Order: sequence, then C-alpha cells, then structure tokens
Amino acid sequence: MALTFDLKATDGAARLGEVGTARGVVRTPAFMPVGTAGTVKGMLPGQVRGTGADIVLGNTYHLMLRPGAERVARLGGLHRFSGWEGPILTDSGGFQVMSLAGLRKITEEGVRFASHVDGTRHFLSPERSMEIQALLGSDIAMCFDECPALPAGRDRIAASMEMSMRWAARSREAFGHPGDRALFGIQQGGLEEDLRRESAERLREIGFEGYAVGGLAVGEGQEAMFGVLDHAPAQLPANRPRYLMGVGKPDDVVGAVKRGIDMMDCVLPTRSGRTGQGWTARGMVNLRNARHRDDPRPLEEGCPCPACAGGYSRAFLHHVVRSKEMIGGMLLTWHNLTYYGRLMAAMRGAIGAGRFADWERGFHARRAEGDLEPV
Amino acid sequence: MALTFDLKATDGAARLGEVGTARGVVRTPAFMPVGTAGTVKGMLPGQVRGTGADIVLGNTYHLMLRPGAERVARLGGLHRFSGWEGPILTDSGGFQVMSLAGLRKITEEGVRFASHVDGTRHFLSPERSMEIQALLGSDIAMCFDECPALPAGRDRIAASMEMSMRWAARSREAFGHPGDRALFGIQQGGLEEDLRRESAERLREIGFEGYAVGGLAVGEGQEAMFGVLDHAPAQLPANRPRYLMGVGKPDDVVGAVKRGIDMMDCVLPTRSGRTGQGWTARGMVNLRNARHRDDPRPLEEGCPCPACAGGYSRAFLHHVVRSKEMIGGMLLTWHNLTYYGRLMAAMRGAIGAGRFADWERGFHARRAEGDLEPV
Ligand SMILES: [Zn+2]
Ligand SMILES: [Zn+2]
Repeated sequence: MALTFDLKATDGAARLGEVGTARGVVRTPAFMPVGTAGTVKGMLPGQVRGTGADIVLGNTYHLMLRPGAERVARLGGLHRFSGWEGPILTDSGGFQVMSLAGLRKITEEGVRFASHVDGTRHFLSPERSMEIQALLGSDIAMCFDECPALPAGRDRIAASMEMSMRWAARSREAFGHPGDRALFGIQQGGLEEDLRRESAERLREIGFEGYAVGGLAVGEGQEAMFGVLDHAPAQLPANRPRYLMGVGKPDDVVGAVKRGIDMMDCVLPTRSGRTGQGWTARGMVNLRNARHRDDPRPLEEGCPCPACAGGYSRAFLHHVVRSKEMIGGMLLTWHNLTYYGRLMAAMRGAIGAGRFADWERGFHARRAEGDLEPV
Repeated sequence: MALTFDLKATDGAARLGEVGTARGVVRTPAFMPVGTAGTVKGMLPGQVRGTGADIVLGNTYHLMLRPGAERVARLGGLHRFSGWEGPILTDSGGFQVMSLAGLRKITEEGVRFASHVDGTRHFLSPERSMEIQALLGSDIAMCFDECPALPAGRDRIAASMEMSMRWAARSREAFGHPGDRALFGIQQGGLEEDLRRESAERLREIGFEGYAVGGLAVGEGQEAMFGVLDHAPAQLPANRPRYLMGVGKPDDVVGAVKRGIDMMDCVLPTRSGRTGQGWTARGMVNLRNARHRDDPRPLEEGCPCPACAGGYSRAFLHHVVRSKEMIGGMLLTWHNLTYYGRLMAAMRGAIGAGRFADWERGFHARRAEGDLEPV
C-alpha cells in the first residue's frame, strides 16, 4: 500500500500513530510546516527537520504558476528541487484558486482563473490537479475540491459538497493507485453534521489512503470548528489518518488532537514569525513591543532553538524585528516551528502515556499565566 | 599590547600575517563581512564563521541610532548582543554621517546630523565616536575622520586630510590605551601621493595599533585606486596591519592584497547576494537571468556552501530569487561569503608558498572564461 497507518494508542478520542510513506515515517499527531513555493520561508530543509517536522506541505497553486509543474518534474521533482528529502504533502490548488474572488470562474468541469503573479490564464480540474501533483512527485496528494467561506446557506454548502464528491471520484480515477504515492479525500459539509456524514460515506465508497476534514478554519470561529470536530473525525475510517486542513493556533491544534485529528498544517508559525510574533507555552509574544527593548532574557527559557538556546535576548529580537533584519524572521520562524514541534511531541507523549487530559490542563494553565512580567 | 601583528611571509608587496586580538586571531589577508546593525544580513554568526571569516565589521552610525550604544552596553556589549564571539571591528560612523548630504553639518568640533530612521538630531565627534565604540566593545575601533567624494579639488582634499589628522589626535586622546581594545588611524589625501605621505607621517607620530587606507572606493575607479595603492601601503608602518576600507569586488580585493593590504571589508558579497547575484571563480552570475530557469547545475561546482554542496540547482536559485523567497538571499549571501572566504584562503596559501603572481594569473584566467555555457 502506498501509505500505511499504525494506530499505536488512543486516549479518549486522541490518537497516537505513525503514517508510513515511501520517504519515511510521520509521527502523529503531526504538524506540517508550510513550504508554499518549494521553501519553508526563511529556513533550510535540515533546519526544518531539526524542529521535529517529519513532513512539509507544498502548494500546488503557487508551484504550478512558478516555477511550473512540468519544470519541477524535469528538474527531478519537488523533493530534489527543494532539498527536502522527507515526505511532502501537496494540496490540490483548489482552496487558493477559490480565494481568487473575481479572478476565477467555477464550472462542473473545473476552475478557470488568472495568475496573481502575471495575470496569465490557467485551468484547474480534478484531472489537471492530479497531473500536477504527480509531476511535483508529492508523497501525499489531495483531492481537488471546492468549499464556500462560512457562514454560508445550507443549500450552497450541500451543492458545493456534492460537487466536491463528484470531483473526489474524478480525482481518484485520475490519480489511480501508484504504489508509492497516496491520495487523501476531503470531507465537506460546513457545520452540518448530516452533510458531513453524507460526505464521509461518499468518500469511503470511493476509498482513499487518508481523509481530510475540509471546509473549516474559513471564518467559523473556534467554537463552531470544535463543534464539527466533535463528530466529523468519527465519521471517517478509524484505520486511516485524519488531516485537518489549515489549522491552526496552538489551542486550535490541541483541541483538534483531542478530538481525533492526526495531521494538521498552517502558515501561522512561519508567517507570524516573519511579523515579529513568537509563540511560547505562555502564549504569543509580540517582539515589536517596546517592553522587550531592554530585556536580556531569552524569548522562551528552555527552548532549544537557535533564538533561545543561541543566547539571543528579547532585546536583540526586538531590535532586529524593528530594523527589518532578515535574521529576525529567520530566528522567530525557527523558534515557532520548534515550539510547534515540541507541542506535538508533548501531545504524542501524553497520549502514549494515557494522560492527555492532565497534559491539556497544564497546557491551558501555562497559557493563562501569560507572558513574563517586564524587567 | 592590545593588538599584535605577526608578519609571517611576504611575496612581492603581498603579505601573509596574523592579527592577534583579545578575542582571537585574524588570518591576513582577511576579508571582513559587514554586520551593519548587529547581524550579517541573512546569516547566523556560526554560519558566517563557517565561511572562513575571522572578524566582522559593525557600523557605529547604525548601532548608535538603533538600538543605541548605551543600550548595547547595558546588554553586555555587541559581542554578546549579536552572538558573534570573535573579533569585531567598528567603523567610526564618520563615513555614513558624511553621506547624509543635506542632513548634516560639519564643523571642527564634529558633525551634527539627523537620523535616517526617525529624524532625531544627533552629534558625532572624535570623542563621542570613541565613547560609542567603547560602549559597543569592539576589538578594533577606527578614528573618526572625514573625506570628500572623488573627484575633488586638491585644496578640499588637503583641508579635509588636515582636519582628519587633528581628529585622529583627538580620537587617540579620547580612546586612550585600553589593554584589550585597539585603535586604527586612517590615512587620507585622496589621489595625491604627497598628501598621503603627509597623512601617514602625522598618523605615525600619534601612533596606532593599525593603519587604514581611507578615502578610496568613493568613485575614483579601480585604476586610480590601484594607483594610490602602489604607494600608500608602503607609507604606513610595515609592522602593523593595513586596512583598506570599503573594498571591494573580487578583482579589487586581489589587486589590493597584491599591493600590501592586510584587511578589507565590503557590503558587496552580502548585498549582491540579496539581489540575486552569485560570485564565482568565473565572475558574477545573475541568478535572475532566465538562462538559469532550467539549469540543473549548481551555482559553482566544488563550492562547499549549502547552496552548491546542498544540492540546489541554478534553477532553484533562479526560482527563489524571482519569487522573492528569503532563502534566495540567505543561500546567495552564504555562497558569496564562502567564495570570499575561499578567495582569501587561496591568497594566503599562495603568499605563503611564494607563488602569488602565478596564482593571480590563474585567478584572472578563470574569470576571463566567463560563466558556464547555458544548458
Ligand atoms: Zn526558541
Ligand atoms: Zn556555493
């Protein structure tokens, strides 16, 4: 099989496992750093790996426009091109294309759109998305689907879900069953439990190596998202990995793992690192804030990243963020991915030990303390 | 003595040596990467060291404005603040301040100017520059001086040189003779050999731990610069290091070493790396150029840097430069400093072996070949 899933332990709905791919094992629950255009912004592949990341995500939309999927294939595929030798998951391009309001036209066949880079016209469909992901050579590909921003009317959500399920069947057909690459289906249905169940049943009938919970983290808020996650993961096959797309903040991630999610991705740790935000056990620290100007302490005591263990003070981080020095974004991205990597490792340990609830109380208690008092 | 200089070999005018500082040895001829505001842009200190750099340069002007010299001192000095544990040379701030045309006023006392960051008003003088460099804690400080852009009339150059020599005496007086920090004098005199000699004599009378050739690389062109370097280094004490400020391109660096220069600094390898330029034995390669779009070859075969030895293709570098990805500037900066580091090491080897002239012929021959043919 192109992808194995070894469920090693459960604690409530939370699951400890290992996803096996042709390019190595992904320990779950796993957070996937986003490497949009063939690079996790500001970091080298070995550095990303060092934060505890087993897998990274690449964006089909960005890579098809620049440098182009056929070009990446000629250059040996995305792994060789980007220097990341571990597993890569690619999204389908659908989500980004749908976000190009006014620049795209959706039909049953697929989506016509104009590039944000140079205005050139392109077409994405289930078949073309599968072809692109094959050219990139990702280890896990995603079905091409469509979903409305929330809130949206039930009719709109149902119609969208149904088209996504037809597109899922076309994606599976076009993808086939290569021995070394896996395809994940994506559950839709907005906040409607019955639509989610129907979507899950349609996906199980088609059959995928893994299943994503899609259509969340699109404006519905944490409470509504957790409401869906109280039932959606259980609608999906227990013996296959479950991937929550585009999530999220640390407390979103913890709440999703608690509810049975195995994999997640989000630009938050990398993007916020480039804007001066550092995530710690005590919450988010804005290094732009003048309170750090004379602070000789590290961003987070005990963190093994080069920003904290490297001896840099909050004062230095404040200075380089304010001065727009590259090293500011580099160090904070590195720190944030290190924080996320340690967070996932801690949850895996807690699930394996059967004490996730205890661990989660501690997680929220430290966050409630807030950041260090100013010096 | 705060600074030792061990002249190990000469080959023609070229010199092989070691500068000893309180924080370690600088192998000369040495190229000093520029860490303007407490960071060599896009690189961590350990990575800079790994390119073969023994010493980095910090800019007094930038650091006094942000984060401020007194703040850096409270935080333990520039070494601790920036994470660079080796020797640091700081310039005096004079050159940057003089460049603020319209925003500064020069008198015998010093220079009043407005910050480019926030417009606040500041004053720099020999005394304040020495104070700031002491607060930063650099291992080698530079005299506060003044020089006109070239071409300039002889009267203007002579008057400027004479004021710089009065300022050199004030700098020495203010700096004193701390046991662990050294002060370099700066020779001025434009392209005028007799003014250069007079300047050198005035500096020798005052007495410094090292001597810089100043007032070059300010628009005079390589031929005129080499013309000065044919006589200026020999006017300075042979038993002290000679530093050529703000130079340069690889062939400038080689020509300066040939003429007896021991130390140089320039933003070129770091700045050009951030704009997509890679320096190789075959000359400068502009990675933005479409000729690299499908090129699977490394930027420079045999280079040990992460861009070349890390398996990245010119096609990848082209892609990330065009996409404005941080990793483009990071990798090219790393490559360029690696190139400069290897260039200096090769010259040190050639001087030690007494075959600098042969080596220099090979250097120019490889450059004359030009870059690889397109694939
Ligand atoms: Zn850290
Ligand atoms: Zn290289």
